[in-house]
Amino acid sequence: MTGPAPRAARRVLGIDPGSQITGWGLLAGTAVEPRLIEAGLLRLGAGDFPQRLALLQERLAELVARLRPTVAAVESPFHGASARSALQLAHARGVILAVLAGAGVEVAEYTPATVKKAVTGSGRAGKRQVAAMVGRLLHGAPPGDSHDLSDALALALCHLASAGHRSAVARARER
Amino acid sequence: MTGPAPRAARRVLGIDPGSQITGWGLLAGTAVEPRLIEAGLLRLGAGDFPQRLALLQERLAELVARLRPTVAAVESPFHGASARSALQLAHARGVILAVLAGAGVEVAEYTPATVKKAVTGSGRAGKRQVAAMVGRLLHGAPPGDSHDLSDALALALCHLASAGHRSAVARARER
Repeated sequence: MTGPAPRAARRVLGIDPGSQITGWGLLAGTAVEPRLIEAGLLRLGAGDFPQRLALLQERLAELVARLRPTVAAVESPFHGASARSALQLAHARGVILAVLAGAGVEVAEYTPATVKKAVTGSGRAGKRQVAAMVGRLLHGAPPGDSHDLSDALALALCHLASAGHRSAVARARER
Repeated sequence: MTGPAPRAARRVLGIDPGSQITGWGLLAGTAVEPRLIEAGLLRLGAGDFPQRLALLQERLAELVARLRPTVAAVESPFHGASARSALQLAHARGVILAVLAGAGVEVAEYTPATVKKAVTGSGRAGKRQVAAMVGRLLHGAPPGDSHDLSDALALALCHLASAGHRSAVARARER
């Protein structure tokens, strides 16, 4: 009989979907002591929309195979944005969810407000505030000057903050 | 020097995206003499949303590798539907476009009204009318009693109807 994986082995991949650029960041550790392993941007090039989605699928599959996250944190789809941009984002999100589930990576979804609140204390924080707090929480590890990147790290931090609760729920479900 | 592929070699895969069931149908021939090669449904099972999208990705990739279509016809995203169902559909559509572009299959998009008009003569035809005309156009080849399947075949027929014009445009672009 094996118990749940030890906490230290938990690797959380935050992903900020976009059809031009998708930001990602891999954290380990806990909410109190998060550790930045690696972060970056998937630039999806200048092809047409299906070609960019194909590149996203290919690059993310490579990334997941290399990083071997235990769980991925992705923003839940938002209904408030303009219909066109929300639909474009949903296409990219669909590719991301398919790649993650296909690789056996658990997917956790958080609303933008939940992420902002977890990282800054306020559900209405701006992107700069989020980026500044992400840098501070990762003990000065530079999140780069891209919001795609700091938003991805914020998602991973948000998951770490609720991971204790969630993993207990998951273990209960598996029984 | 090689010219464009002969017309008879053109294989059009129509796809009707869904996050539960995705219909598909492969046609060859021309708008005047369409020929049904094969059609079917991808049933995406009872898993959660990411798992169904992963299954869609896997099954469609297998299908495309086996059928080797030259072009795929997919419905363009519609903005009129409820935000929730449009977003779900966009996720499935994203997976489909990524798989097609990743396999080098050209993607052609048509609005629902264009498809209905091409097949029945009216942009406001109902699903039954479309299904009946698809059966008639394919010379009695039974499209099954699923609208997911007849809608996929209608998309392929719509593409054949405009393929002469489109392939001329594509050849002009390649020069």
